[in-house]
Amino acid sequence: MVGPEIERLIALLARLPGLGPRSARRAALALVERKDSLLDPLVRALAQVAHTVKTCPICGNFDSCEPCAICADPTRDESQLCVVADVGSLWAMERTGAFKGRYHVLGGLLSALDGIGPDDLAIESLRARAASGRFSEIILALPATVEAQTTAHFVQDRLAATGIRLSALAQGVPVGGELDYLDDGTLSAALKARRTLS
Amino acid sequence: MVGPEIERLIALLARLPGLGPRSARRAALALVERKDSLLDPLVRALAQVAHTVKTCPICGNFDSCEPCAICADPTRDESQLCVVADVGSLWAMERTGAFKGRYHVLGGLLSALDGIGPDDLAIESLRARAASGRFSEIILALPATVEAQTTAHFVQDRLAATGIRLSALAQGVPVGGELDYLDDGTLSAALKARRTLS
Repeated sequence: MVGPEIERLIALLARLPGLGPRSARRAALALVERKDSLLDPLVRALAQVAHTVKTCPICGNFDSCEPCAICADPTRDESQLCVVADVGSLWAMERTGAFKGRYHVLGGLLSALDGIGPDDLAIESLRARAASGRFSEIILALPATVEAQTTAHFVQDRLAATGIRLSALAQGVPVGGELDYLDDGTLSAALKARRTLS
Repeated sequence: MVGPEIERLIALLARLPGLGPRSARRAALALVERKDSLLDPLVRALAQVAHTVKTCPICGNFDSCEPCAICADPTRDESQLCVVADVGSLWAMERTGAFKGRYHVLGGLLSALDGIGPDDLAIESLRARAASGRFSEIILALPATVEAQTTAHFVQDRLAATGIRLSALAQGVPVGGELDYLDDGTLSAALKARRTLS
């Protein structure tokens, strides 16, 4: 007995990650109840994003300027290029504040299961950037999955001719992590990659 | 390093019930990534709801028609009026399909703590509807909280002069509920309200 307009809104909200049918219903209700303070501003914010946000032609990040703020920032380190699978990973790296170089978004990971091949990813443009001679190191910041390993091997292969230094994120015990709660794979990897202290 | 447009969208999404700052970020990312299939339809659906959905002047439900589809439905039982705290409760009652009468949304519950008094709720209009003589029973479908009890007592007081029959939802063991996992209050209430079987 909910009107078709609200039903359509609920169905769309339920497609957002983190919202199921029940929470989408609650979110829709909150929006209708708070029209002036929530619904109207959200319409404007979404329309604004829809109109202005574009994919950066250089790195693949989302931003309202072209090239994106990171690519356009002259204070960032020109010698390091960080390769990430998606924009979410790029944002995660930026939140750490630990990386001050440039980025390259692959747009996914190689996956035979999902039918994602090398041509579906921004690997050729990565090779071109690597071959430009501007970067002295390329850091692969990929997740610790089988697809990411396959992708890393493939990228390494394609970049071999450029002679550029390639590195990857370290695997090991997460900060604050208890050994007892850690999975065996991570613990084995941390042991294998142990650092010499003295 | 996320643009101001996306930051504003994340801040607004985080104000929806069920979404925290982290899931709002993921939702914003999903929206930007799926502009045609998710972002644009959501903008249209929200704008549609913002333009068309109104509060029904009779019962307080949200709908695009005035009066709402429930108030306008001639097949519904004219003799029963179900009083609910908010539109979310009305929708929950409708989902059960067990009630075929009319509704009255109070717009909240009496709460000295939150400064919500009788004048902030649709109690006077409820008295007027009860006094119209159209209804033979008023069912209080309020939550099982202290505020709801206070509100129920107050409503009962205000409707006493109308002589109308007043009832409330039963309290007891939820369907599928295990006694072992039930709180003491519910179990005591279920015992006190026990039904005679033979």
